[in-house]
Amino acid sequence: MPNSFGKLFRITTWGESHGPAVGVVIDGCPPRLPLSTVEIQADLDRRRPGQSDITTPRKEDDKVEILSGVFEGLTTGVPISLAVRSSDQRPGAYDEMKEKYRPSHADYTYQAKYGHRDHRGGGRSSARETVGRVAAGAVARKILQLAGGVEVRAFVTRIHDIAAPGFENFPTLAEVEASPVRCPHPDTAARMVERIKQARSTGDSVGGVIECRVRRVPVGLGEPVFDRLEAELAKAMLSLPATKGFEIGSGFAGTLLKGSEHNDVFIKRDGHIATATNHSGGVQGGISNGEEIVFRVAFKPTATILQPQKTVDIHGAETELLARGRHDPCVVPRAVVIVEAMTALVLVDHWMRHHAQSQTFKFQS
Amino acid sequence: MPNSFGKLFRITTWGESHGPAVGVVIDGCPPRLPLSTVEIQADLDRRRPGQSDITTPRKEDDKVEILSGVFEGLTTGVPISLAVRSSDQRPGAYDEMKEKYRPSHADYTYQAKYGHRDHRGGGRSSARETVGRVAAGAVARKILQLAGGVEVRAFVTRIHDIAAPGFENFPTLAEVEASPVRCPHPDTAARMVERIKQARSTGDSVGGVIECRVRRVPVGLGEPVFDRLEAELAKAMLSLPATKGFEIGSGFAGTLLKGSEHNDVFIKRDGHIATATNHSGGVQGGISNGEEIVFRVAFKPTATILQPQKTVDIHGAETELLARGRHDPCVVPRAVVIVEAMTALVLVDHWMRHHAQSQTFKFQS
Amino acid sequence: MPNSFGKLFRITTWGESHGPAVGVVIDGCPPRLPLSTVEIQADLDRRRPGQSDITTPRKEDDKVEILSGVFEGLTTGVPISLAVRSSDQRPGAYDEMKEKYRPSHADYTYQAKYGHRDHRGGGRSSARETVGRVAAGAVARKILQLAGGVEVRAFVTRIHDIAAPGFENFPTLAEVEASPVRCPHPDTAARMVERIKQARSTGDSVGGVIECRVRRVPVGLGEPVFDRLEAELAKAMLSLPATKGFEIGSGFAGTLLKGSEHNDVFIKRDGHIATATNHSGGVQGGISNGEEIVFRVAFKPTATILQPQKTVDIHGAETELLARGRHDPCVVPRAVVIVEAMTALVLVDHWMRHHAQSQTFKFQS
Amino acid sequence: MPNSFGKLFRITTWGESHGPAVGVVIDGCPPRLPLSTVEIQADLDRRRPGQSDITTPRKEDDKVEILSGVFEGLTTGVPISLAVRSSDQRPGAYDEMKEKYRPSHADYTYQAKYGHRDHRGGGRSSARETVGRVAAGAVARKILQLAGGVEVRAFVTRIHDIAAPGFENFPTLAEVEASPVRCPHPDTAARMVERIKQARSTGDSVGGVIECRVRRVPVGLGEPVFDRLEAELAKAMLSLPATKGFEIGSGFAGTLLKGSEHNDVFIKRDGHIATATNHSGGVQGGISNGEEIVFRVAFKPTATILQPQKTVDIHGAETELLARGRHDPCVVPRAVVIVEAMTALVLVDHWMRHHAQSQTFKFQS
Repeated sequence: MPNSFGKLFRITTWGESHGPAVGVVIDGCPPRLPLSTVEIQADLDRRRPGQSDITTPRKEDDKVEILSGVFEGLTTGVPISLAVRSSDQRPGAYDEMKEKYRPSHADYTYQAKYGHRDHRGGGRSSARETVGRVAAGAVARKILQLAGGVEVRAFVTRIHDIAAPGFENFPTLAEVEASPVRCPHPDTAARMVERIKQARSTGDSVGGVIECRVRRVPVGLGEPVFDRLEAELAKAMLSLPATKGFEIGSGFAGTLLKGSEHNDVFIKRDGHIATATNHSGGVQGGISNGEEIVFRVAFKPTATILQPQKTVDIHGAETELLARGRHDPCVVPRAVVIVEAMTALVLVDHWMRHHAQSQTFKFQS
Repeated sequence: MPNSFGKLFRITTWGESHGPAVGVVIDGCPPRLPLSTVEIQADLDRRRPGQSDITTPRKEDDKVEILSGVFEGLTTGVPISLAVRSSDQRPGAYDEMKEKYRPSHADYTYQAKYGHRDHRGGGRSSARETVGRVAAGAVARKILQLAGGVEVRAFVTRIHDIAAPGFENFPTLAEVEASPVRCPHPDTAARMVERIKQARSTGDSVGGVIECRVRRVPVGLGEPVFDRLEAELAKAMLSLPATKGFEIGSGFAGTLLKGSEHNDVFIKRDGHIATATNHSGGVQGGISNGEEIVFRVAFKPTATILQPQKTVDIHGAETELLARGRHDPCVVPRAVVIVEAMTALVLVDHWMRHHAQSQTFKFQS
Repeated sequence: MPNSFGKLFRITTWGESHGPAVGVVIDGCPPRLPLSTVEIQADLDRRRPGQSDITTPRKEDDKVEILSGVFEGLTTGVPISLAVRSSDQRPGAYDEMKEKYRPSHADYTYQAKYGHRDHRGGGRSSARETVGRVAAGAVARKILQLAGGVEVRAFVTRIHDIAAPGFENFPTLAEVEASPVRCPHPDTAARMVERIKQARSTGDSVGGVIECRVRRVPVGLGEPVFDRLEAELAKAMLSLPATKGFEIGSGFAGTLLKGSEHNDVFIKRDGHIATATNHSGGVQGGISNGEEIVFRVAFKPTATILQPQKTVDIHGAETELLARGRHDPCVVPRAVVIVEAMTALVLVDHWMRHHAQSQTFKFQS
Repeated sequence: MPNSFGKLFRITTWGESHGPAVGVVIDGCPPRLPLSTVEIQADLDRRRPGQSDITTPRKEDDKVEILSGVFEGLTTGVPISLAVRSSDQRPGAYDEMKEKYRPSHADYTYQAKYGHRDHRGGGRSSARETVGRVAAGAVARKILQLAGGVEVRAFVTRIHDIAAPGFENFPTLAEVEASPVRCPHPDTAARMVERIKQARSTGDSVGGVIECRVRRVPVGLGEPVFDRLEAELAKAMLSLPATKGFEIGSGFAGTLLKGSEHNDVFIKRDGHIATATNHSGGVQGGISNGEEIVFRVAFKPTATILQPQKTVDIHGAETELLARGRHDPCVVPRAVVIVEAMTALVLVDHWMRHHAQSQTFKFQS
């Protein structure tokens, strides 16, 4: 249950950082969707370690295999099982983690909760788990694209204290991918890359903020009361490793406005009902209103640093954790495709839920 | 489904703003819990409209009735049905809302989604729905208290641009309740009250920020991967009307730190494993680590204002919404108990989930 | 959770036999369904105690109240809360049950499971709980009727050892309701009534078999693998008090046929694909095939009898249970509408699930 | 969702008959359970095709691989991913099924529901899907065994019209496995084997009945109202391919008794509360009462027969299905371990659910 997400388009991920494989099962995928490994691999490649010189040097091909659910190029409506074999397992590299709890990692809490843990590379709490999310997200993105050109675009707006200016236009994928840091503002991107390299050179790490926008979302997605669209997105984002905050539309800054300034006045635009401003972030009463969905996610600096740190071992004795090996000074650029994946999963699930309740039966009135 | 929350301690709320009643069914409550209307009523009274001169003048007694699940003062393990009759229904007062979409309300999206809506006072999207949450939350709080003195304390830290200084100590309930604005810092509270009155005098509204802390949480609550404790809390908070943001521990500000500054070093404290700092906000890898849980929630300014606003009517024509009637210039003080309720619901549910997986069977090894 | 049924059209029932009220919350009902208390009351009246001289003399009006979810005669898509106040509570009548476990009742298992139980009239294990199911089932039946004239018809085919001959035609509601025993074969019905009266005269009880048929079911309802339509129906039926068996189509007798005799050959009928026989009972591979759905449910003789019985008390001592008070010699006739209700709930839920997966998105191929 | 089973001990199966692999993900498995492929393989070998001369000659090793969730011989509490590669795929052997609907198979309903299907060997509707169930069931059985020696034993009591006499004692595994037909009564077993060979020789098939008994079940498993233990077992059994009926305890025959004959009188046995008879089948009010759980499942004759049959093709034209290739004249003996698997899954899930609600918190009263 805790490893599943979604009600109707439901994914279940499995696999540990240094186990033989990681993967995902998608249950509830609509039938007759054209699907191959090509589109899934494209997203996995954006998440893949070792893709640029500002990320972890772990070497993984991350080649996806479709084990079920697709026949003659089309989904059949039954579970889609996707698996990725791991190769760079480095036995012995994580021996220190067996005995010592790494600060701000999940070592201690997993040990306390389960009494037994796979200590190699963080086991299940490793970001390697997100391989399954990204693979499933690629399927969801394909659905959104075919269903009406719905586009999900995430990008980096801040690394440490280097912030990009606001983006008037909806950034293109090419603009985002132009820089390894995935900030579509070239000058800022260059400075961000420098900041990450600087952190790496001192064995330190930095975090940042990702913004996600979605356009061409139909009106009506999201369900009152507990499954409001923003609530589902918030859960999706806070379920990602290293996230500490979520805000939609005006967010925390919106609390500095008065109601008369914050309200989004309804207008007619191109014959449709629209809003003059978008402080709501595309969601009102928990339901999409047809405007762009806009939200931001805060990622803390990576907990793994190459500096000695005080800590406690599994026997409860105070000790010091020595630092060595490979290290990812900033996970934010690789998290962009993960944010997109989770967003797509939420939207497809709610699209199906909305359709089920409102469109299954046609009553006269 | 969308009106239910929780997996094992599961609540389902029902009722519209101006229907005959609102209520909640709690399924999965442990048996033998001492329970009466007294503790439930106490929390409802903190949420009740008309409780002070800075809130809505709507008059509701909000007297709760226990319709099932309690026998001879103890829960029996079967569903607990709680209902509150509504009295202040004011027929006719909302006729304008039948035809015109109120800016930043759910009128338009509900109409678009369902094709038919109860327009009186917001119907189901009204904050009146939270009566059921608070009633159920009172039961969850009783469980937490008896289970080991776990305390959930929310309070207001900002109204509009008036912010309280940080709180070293865990505020007492008396300190929070000392002011109608529920900020435990008296000087700031007084200024907040003035700001709210000022907004009301111009028919305007303001928002703010609520902080919530929980102490004596056992280690081990929360489940990887998708049901991390912070993910569940984020969803719970963003499911509340008027919320726009959530952050835990260091939150958005934490992205300005480097890993070496942000990591919470493990130490021994009173013979237990603890952390020297609490940037994690009490949660690591999605699982509680025994430190205080600390998070903040952003509430936008109330959408209802007593000023004329441009809008569109249900026929798609541009029009103006006239302002009249009663009005709540700031919902934040009344939301304090709602934040506490949702927090308690998440914790009890995860306590049961943790216990089920880790404690049901005792294996030798 | 255990008190909820359905995934998308989801009901949650609450209330004990002798509590102040019983009721149900329906979550996920499609919007714009015309609904009033009239159709709900009609089904409740078929379940009501005291409706004829072969049932329990408990006196209950069972008047239903709609507390939410319907506005101006139409559902709005939000939860529908239905409640029925209880009147005939007879304090003191059940004192013996406080101390002594009634054979083949749930007294002992509830006490063992929860450590505390409402002993009055069986508490939550009483058939009075089915009031909520029938009320919700009436809503589901309304949907089925409007969605295409889908008809659910249950009727009694056996009481004790008195069995009706097989029914060629789909019995009409009038034929079923013509006799208080709800067997549409008049001669058999008369003998069944006599058998029930005979059992009552000796303080004994009898059980029987209900058959349920559904016609005009669209092809495609039911989901592989675990939520096959027959699996969901089996669960629905075995969740009813006093049921001991379920069989669909050829059922247990079908095991006496060879494959060459049992297979339902496909033919063309009225331009549609149909089957020449219906041993499958309208379901193949867990999915409706457009033929009549046909299944049967076994009900044991009522556990409450007016004869002294040996038993054990709550302290573990052997004792005797004295018999007195009112008594229902056969629950089968009143269970007919409950079987129909559960069947309708399964069908509406699966209709929505099918639509969500297969109809939400239209892919070219 | 439809491919998942269980609430807390939750499995998701995936894979088609002739896809590259089949498998299962187990979510919620308790940590620290000793687990290896040995015990899983043992159960898979009992399900494996080609195991005897009365079953299908399809050749599959069915070697299981553990891909996640087990570390150093113990489960870690995270998802356990199990996969089995398929080898005997015989491309071309199923070309006729592409065009013609096989009678009493799922070809037509899958095509109607999804508009696209994997026609090779039945795709997802094939009994090959149960590989995942059996693998997960082996894990559940290990838990039950370690948790207190709970034993689940299924066996064949009837093949076609050859019925075994009732079994006084709880059959041993050795007694069941002594014959390829898995009936623990040797003489009857021999006759059953003959009957199956006879059916095969004419290209025909036969069905039968499996009885399942469970002993040492703790009191208190099962949840009112909708998730009664018998309801969950009924769903589990009717979710298996080829099943047409389920009955617990006295079952359909119990309707021929009067209440005074059917009631299970409570007695003291070995200092515990017990019942003198067991018409209830070990469950009262939906909750286990500590007696043996006893139920029976009806399996129809296999739909695949090697005889020409009339049918309709995918274009709607009437045609004839020619018969050829390999063929399983009776699936009942191989279904024994599948029935045991599903039973174990239900029990472990409910054990955890019971514990969560009743044991997580200890209230004074």
